[in-house]
Amino acid sequence: MTILITGGTVVNATGTVEADVLIDGETVVAVVAPGSTALGADLAATADRVIDATGKYVVPGGVDAHTHMELPFGGTAASDTFETGTTAAAWGGTTSIVDFAVQRQGERVQDGLEAWHKRAAGNCAIDYAFHQIIGGVDDDSLAAMRTLVDEGITSYKMFMAYPGVFYADDAQILRAMQVARDEGLLTMMHAENGPAIDVLAAQLVDQGKTDPYYHGLARPWQLEEEATHRAIMLSDLTGAPLYVVHVSAKQAVAQLAAARDAGKNVFGETCPQYLYLSLEEQLGASSEEFGTFEGAKWVCSTPLRARAEGHQDAMWQALRTNDLQVVSTDHCPFCMKDQKELGRGDFRAIPNGIGSVEHRMDLLYQGVVTGKISLERWVELCSVTPARMFGMYGTKGVIQPGADADIVVYDPTGLTTLGVRTHHMNMDHSAWEGFEVDGHVDVVLSRGEVVVDDAGFHGRAGHGRFVKRGLSQYLV
Amino acid sequence: MTILITGGTVVNATGTVEADVLIDGETVVAVVAPGSTALGADLAATADRVIDATGKYVVPGGVDAHTHMELPFGGTAASDTFETGTTAAAWGGTTSIVDFAVQRQGERVQDGLEAWHKRAAGNCAIDYAFHQIIGGVDDDSLAAMRTLVDEGITSYKMFMAYPGVFYADDAQILRAMQVARDEGLLTMMHAENGPAIDVLAAQLVDQGKTDPYYHGLARPWQLEEEATHRAIMLSDLTGAPLYVVHVSAKQAVAQLAAARDAGKNVFGETCPQYLYLSLEEQLGASSEEFGTFEGAKWVCSTPLRARAEGHQDAMWQALRTNDLQVVSTDHCPFCMKDQKELGRGDFRAIPNGIGSVEHRMDLLYQGVVTGKISLERWVELCSVTPARMFGMYGTKGVIQPGADADIVVYDPTGLTTLGVRTHHMNMDHSAWEGFEVDGHVDVVLSRGEVVVDDAGFHGRAGHGRFVKRGLSQYLV
Amino acid sequence: MTILITGGTVVNATGTVEADVLIDGETVVAVVAPGSTALGADLAATADRVIDATGKYVVPGGVDAHTHMELPFGGTAASDTFETGTTAAAWGGTTSIVDFAVQRQGERVQDGLEAWHKRAAGNCAIDYAFHQIIGGVDDDSLAAMRTLVDEGITSYKMFMAYPGVFYADDAQILRAMQVARDEGLLTMMHAENGPAIDVLAAQLVDQGKTDPYYHGLARPWQLEEEATHRAIMLSDLTGAPLYVVHVSAKQAVAQLAAARDAGKNVFGETCPQYLYLSLEEQLGASSEEFGTFEGAKWVCSTPLRARAEGHQDAMWQALRTNDLQVVSTDHCPFCMKDQKELGRGDFRAIPNGIGSVEHRMDLLYQGVVTGKISLERWVELCSVTPARMFGMYGTKGVIQPGADADIVVYDPTGLTTLGVRTHHMNMDHSAWEGFEVDGHVDVVLSRGEVVVDDAGFHGRAGHGRFVKRGLSQYLV
Amino acid sequence: MTILITGGTVVNATGTVEADVLIDGETVVAVVAPGSTALGADLAATADRVIDATGKYVVPGGVDAHTHMELPFGGTAASDTFETGTTAAAWGGTTSIVDFAVQRQGERVQDGLEAWHKRAAGNCAIDYAFHQIIGGVDDDSLAAMRTLVDEGITSYKMFMAYPGVFYADDAQILRAMQVARDEGLLTMMHAENGPAIDVLAAQLVDQGKTDPYYHGLARPWQLEEEATHRAIMLSDLTGAPLYVVHVSAKQAVAQLAAARDAGKNVFGETCPQYLYLSLEEQLGASSEEFGTFEGAKWVCSTPLRARAEGHQDAMWQALRTNDLQVVSTDHCPFCMKDQKELGRGDFRAIPNGIGSVEHRMDLLYQGVVTGKISLERWVELCSVTPARMFGMYGTKGVIQPGADADIVVYDPTGLTTLGVRTHHMNMDHSAWEGFEVDGHVDVVLSRGEVVVDDAGFHGRAGHGRFVKRGLSQYLV
Repeated sequence: MTILITGGTVVNATGTVEADVLIDGETVVAVVAPGSTALGADLAATADRVIDATGKYVVPGGVDAHTHMELPFGGTAASDTFETGTTAAAWGGTTSIVDFAVQRQGERVQDGLEAWHKRAAGNCAIDYAFHQIIGGVDDDSLAAMRTLVDEGITSYKMFMAYPGVFYADDAQILRAMQVARDEGLLTMMHAENGPAIDVLAAQLVDQGKTDPYYHGLARPWQLEEEATHRAIMLSDLTGAPLYVVHVSAKQAVAQLAAARDAGKNVFGETCPQYLYLSLEEQLGASSEEFGTFEGAKWVCSTPLRARAEGHQDAMWQALRTNDLQVVSTDHCPFCMKDQKELGRGDFRAIPNGIGSVEHRMDLLYQGVVTGKISLERWVELCSVTPARMFGMYGTKGVIQPGADADIVVYDPTGLTTLGVRTHHMNMDHSAWEGFEVDGHVDVVLSRGEVVVDDAGFHGRAGHGRFVKRGLSQYLV
Repeated sequence: MTILITGGTVVNATGTVEADVLIDGETVVAVVAPGSTALGADLAATADRVIDATGKYVVPGGVDAHTHMELPFGGTAASDTFETGTTAAAWGGTTSIVDFAVQRQGERVQDGLEAWHKRAAGNCAIDYAFHQIIGGVDDDSLAAMRTLVDEGITSYKMFMAYPGVFYADDAQILRAMQVARDEGLLTMMHAENGPAIDVLAAQLVDQGKTDPYYHGLARPWQLEEEATHRAIMLSDLTGAPLYVVHVSAKQAVAQLAAARDAGKNVFGETCPQYLYLSLEEQLGASSEEFGTFEGAKWVCSTPLRARAEGHQDAMWQALRTNDLQVVSTDHCPFCMKDQKELGRGDFRAIPNGIGSVEHRMDLLYQGVVTGKISLERWVELCSVTPARMFGMYGTKGVIQPGADADIVVYDPTGLTTLGVRTHHMNMDHSAWEGFEVDGHVDVVLSRGEVVVDDAGFHGRAGHGRFVKRGLSQYLV
Repeated sequence: MTILITGGTVVNATGTVEADVLIDGETVVAVVAPGSTALGADLAATADRVIDATGKYVVPGGVDAHTHMELPFGGTAASDTFETGTTAAAWGGTTSIVDFAVQRQGERVQDGLEAWHKRAAGNCAIDYAFHQIIGGVDDDSLAAMRTLVDEGITSYKMFMAYPGVFYADDAQILRAMQVARDEGLLTMMHAENGPAIDVLAAQLVDQGKTDPYYHGLARPWQLEEEATHRAIMLSDLTGAPLYVVHVSAKQAVAQLAAARDAGKNVFGETCPQYLYLSLEEQLGASSEEFGTFEGAKWVCSTPLRARAEGHQDAMWQALRTNDLQVVSTDHCPFCMKDQKELGRGDFRAIPNGIGSVEHRMDLLYQGVVTGKISLERWVELCSVTPARMFGMYGTKGVIQPGADADIVVYDPTGLTTLGVRTHHMNMDHSAWEGFEVDGHVDVVLSRGEVVVDDAGFHGRAGHGRFVKRGLSQYLV
Repeated sequence: MTILITGGTVVNATGTVEADVLIDGETVVAVVAPGSTALGADLAATADRVIDATGKYVVPGGVDAHTHMELPFGGTAASDTFETGTTAAAWGGTTSIVDFAVQRQGERVQDGLEAWHKRAAGNCAIDYAFHQIIGGVDDDSLAAMRTLVDEGITSYKMFMAYPGVFYADDAQILRAMQVARDEGLLTMMHAENGPAIDVLAAQLVDQGKTDPYYHGLARPWQLEEEATHRAIMLSDLTGAPLYVVHVSAKQAVAQLAAARDAGKNVFGETCPQYLYLSLEEQLGASSEEFGTFEGAKWVCSTPLRARAEGHQDAMWQALRTNDLQVVSTDHCPFCMKDQKELGRGDFRAIPNGIGSVEHRMDLLYQGVVTGKISLERWVELCSVTPARMFGMYGTKGVIQPGADADIVVYDPTGLTTLGVRTHHMNMDHSAWEGFEVDGHVDVVLSRGEVVVDDAGFHGRAGHGRFVKRGLSQYLV
């Protein structure tokens, strides 16, 4: 089975090119000049299928390096299964996710990883890989970390937040980073000072300030900036490269920028919510059904930041200056019913998370429309760099011979409406309700199969395969 | 005429790929998976010529964005003609140069540009383009700047150094930058405080300190740092993007880094001499023939810096952190005989310049060998980014369908010896005498013609064409 | 003649003390504990005069290190003579001024200094000293600089602004700083990029933007920040300490702060207008008499800055953090009639300057009232540090045995109204019209003579003597 | 009883003055011009005692704001009692100490304070005050903190190091700082990341690296820099001013400097050992008696730093730039015999501390001799600012009417030899053995009593009184 995508503009990180893309089975086999006779073959005539991309962008499928399908959290679990979540991702032009297998204090890393393999295997519509959460650092889990690279798990995550749940103290972080440095693992960090946050949160609740809005006040930027700096210094001390997840405070970006200027091997990711939404969403939010608890829709950590402080502009700027390198979603959906509602009367019990896995490509393309980033930078942030950062590039994140045919035909003249009535995520609301953006995902191929086309989904659970990842290509 | 380059590893800015490259006439028409049958054609069988690149890198031809062939300077002229200089460039894997047309105070810009067209036309072995030096800012030259983009000249250079020669004062810089902002021209700046340098130089000569070594002492880093900051602020004020040429002081890099962190549109280039050589070369240099004047070989501006201050490490680091984006040569060769010798007894009269156009690709590849930069970054610094920065990308700087077939087959197992006995530049000495580096330029194609192969030169003067450049792709 | 000041709180830079101050003739001879019997003498009984300072502060008389009495500028001259200006200063609690003798291109420094001595001698109500303006750097003026310390002139000023008037280019600055470093002279700098300003100003006038308001737009902060950095680097290169006058842009403060953190010997002064007034004064200003030209009252250089950019807060903060060390007035008064009016129709012709010599102590004390600075810091900024910075401390700037009895009894419960009807400066308007502040200058002694008391002036022209200054005490 | 100190040069923070000082009982009553007749009394004739200070400096007695007499630590206790320690202090020109009362986890703050009062009362040769160590933050100790100001204890200390001993985690620090902000208490911080240090130390011991030298390697600068930044951010978040003790890493200073530039209310202290000694002392140290364990003499925390990294120069520079404000000793003496020896075979068991209470004034005066600081800055760092910082100024830290007559007559032509044979501290060794410095403490008065004179000690245990301190004068 061969497919030829013709007439489009192929976009990569450094430029664009008018070229046709020939796919054979699961793989791209050639990128050719339209109409060239030098090949001695008429590809459009011989291809089993021709996809006309005239006037459209042909981009490497999105790589969402931060999702949490089915994540158990706060007595419930993220509402998207690997099936619903990866299907929604495909709708939005994302063809690979990297989800997080979980180990907690007292559990075996191997058991956590195995459990996640079981959840995902046979259920994914697109390819998937895993990072490993190390929620309990001890001799056993440190030993297990040494086996991860062989499993194709070349990155792991620790939390400076969530004491009693995933929290690692500095001694634990130091020990884990030493192993990471030896093994070539990339350390991902949730950088917020959890012990301090818990004090502030408890004080707010004691004062009767229990609405979702106070979630944000309990997590001031100082505690993100502080933890970011601390993680950088522990990285510097151990020599373990660092990747800070879901950066939302401009001061945290400044810490990353300073460290990078000094030649330190540190990276950062932000998420669409920190580019478009602010703490004030939660103030204004009030509905008949939920009252002021409506704000729970936007409860996530790191939290949305105060609009007037300029964090959104700082995030966009950092995406331009490469002080942040990746945009992921931190997709962690919870329904209001039965899930977010657990936190009525105490914001601390609201499951943290926003669902965006379907919208990342569109929301970032909007930055191209508004002149915030270039077309090439869009592809770099959403596909190329996440693939490079997490050891998948060449197979993923690029349209070139030998690469998996994970490709999106993107229509810059299209329109996309975001909201609960149109999205495919398993959520009873949307943090993005009412957003209308330029651009539209027209066709999506996953390993050579057309999974989205003609506004219909043609994929299937089980098509997606586990991707054994290599070491981060930013570290070699 | 078709050529197939087979078996090699194609390198671009974001990764590598095992792929064959098909060339038809002057142009790349396809990049294909080796051995794929999906094309329905056996390219190796049908190609007019097959180049075996097994075990070698296939990289986009080098783009040297800073050369001065035949430049009149100090009563003499740079010793490489467009013919000898571009031939030497080809030998070294560089397939495009951007040279500088010159306008001086009282001259017409159009005349300068025309003169340079005359010098180059019919004489170049590889493709060439021009920046415009504006050495005299006045109403006429400002008006002429508005016509440059139409001429394919999308960048121009001013000098904060060399009072009485090329020097522009701040009022002139401001006025020129205003025009540049309006027209989309990229402002290139020689950032050294010339008036202050001239005071120091005169004082040294008055003290009898006339040896070449004192050239460096007359140009302390403070005066590069200062001018760099001043240029950045004038850029910030006018909104005109800035590209600082031949950065050699770590403090100047720090100014660029700070400006870039703040989102300012500023860029910087360094040169091989600032990565490998230091002020102390000139102290140690002494020969029977030239005595202490031997140091004149390394007289260039900005000058080589004191080794102990760590500038070389800072330059390499900045190349990694992307605080510097391009490596050019500032190729400006002068022979010792009759040229550098003009400055015996007064270092101020030594023509400034080092010749490296032949060695840039090799000297930078050495950074890959020693682990200072990645293979991809080598290609990015030497080919991809200069092409993007100066509006040539797509045609130059990349191996993709539709691009000019400017390609280097680079042998990582080869060796290259630098020096006057082996180089092809028209110089009676080499600043690089005795350097032996890993890696070797095996085959060079310029617009589909094999100009270097089997250790022989097969090109010709006149093959090279003038490239009308578009606007800098970093500004769109 | 002995005077005892009793019952007050003596304030110095590090604290306060309840103490009586005994004056004998022109000099303080003792600071004693009230009521102590250990002296074996009843000072209150034996003193010729007793001044009751109960409930009041007893502070060292103000030292205004930046005034321009009778300064010729733009075809007119500053409206305060040494007599009217020093009398107004005394009214406001300032007992020493350091004015500027002027040398211009082609003039002899010695002649300028002699001329200023002639203007001041016999005319001053309080003590005075001189800085030397070097408005034309050449071999003669550089040689003359070497004689200044012997004349008691230990600081000199250059201008990076005002091409054609006082402007010094970088070569000139460098040469002057070399002399200053050798001689121990403190370099004072007007740090604005004059050549660039003149371009912007001419463009505005060409566009018909001739109102006073455009004076500010022609002098954007970038050009103050730039010049400040340039001056710092030239200071660093030569080893000559630097004092930047009338800092108004927060970005210029940041440059000073960074240099000071790096251990560089640089200092900065701001003025009351930059603490309280903003560019927008000029927008709102309109009167029947002057129309929009009313804004000319606030035309000074560096200019008032845009309020929303936060410069005022930055100045106050820098006074707290000691990134700025001195508050002077840059007193340079011009009447609207016949003087400011010269610039109707072209803001470039408006004489630059605001008159504040009478108000500095009160306006800064207001910062104590509002909690912006401490009581001690008030005295430090207005008296102690200017005296130390300019080599007068011990005699001036402190209340201690042997010091000149320059003393202010300041009533914190008093009120002061600023404006043309109440001030004593020779001006037909006030930039401070309508200001009412807490605190009041009750009694002023100049070298032991009561010159202000009971809301009356009891001094006289000619009482004030020239002060030969020593080297800056910040440099030893 | 009256004393007149005649003929000397009185030194304070802003300058010097030739003046006589009259003391009546415990208090300074007058500072007078030598030979003035205006007093109507011949003080030299009427004084009970005249001390001739001709040719000498008369300085406010030293205030050592950081001592640990009798501190229980690691199974032993600091070897100086309040009697021996304060006697040694007096010998060295220090007339006030601020020692640390200790509360640990599970203990009552009130009990700790009471215990320290018992240890000190009746035993001190000079005046003393207390900070409170809060080694266990809980509801009880937080409540007790609210009573400290009434006790004259206006500062307290927490430890980010020493888990299991004094360590406070970030939640505890946050809570304590909130109380401190409310009460006006100054927060003192031992800023090193203890949990991370403990990991490194255990790893070194596991590798058999048990010598004293490895103490330093277990405490790299990154962990001081990190903790310093963290403390600053928690201070910023709570609004509680911060004072970082015993800063030794230049990177920690940089954090303080950046915070201070940003207007944050943070301060820092360094100690003589960080100005003169380095990690390498411990490498070179080897003796017949102790072998390589000799290095234990220099085991303190924060540790001595590597010489080549330039920390000493950075500390001196920060003292000049006022990025550090105070020099204290962190006097915490342990003998080698029976005390330091506890750590043979495991550096972790070596009691941490160096004894310098006797040498601070001399060691810092050496900085005046070598041109590193000015004479005035010497007095400011050692007497004036510690008194202001800790709420004692006016009574202590200054020579003025009403102040305690704590005065040192310092002979700049004298010489002082440091070492175990000459010092008066209760130690069997000296970290300063072999140091010979210019300057000599000739006469010391404590509250009007001559306690050191003619190279003899004339004081007594019990003369020293507890000083109830006011709020930090830097915070008002």
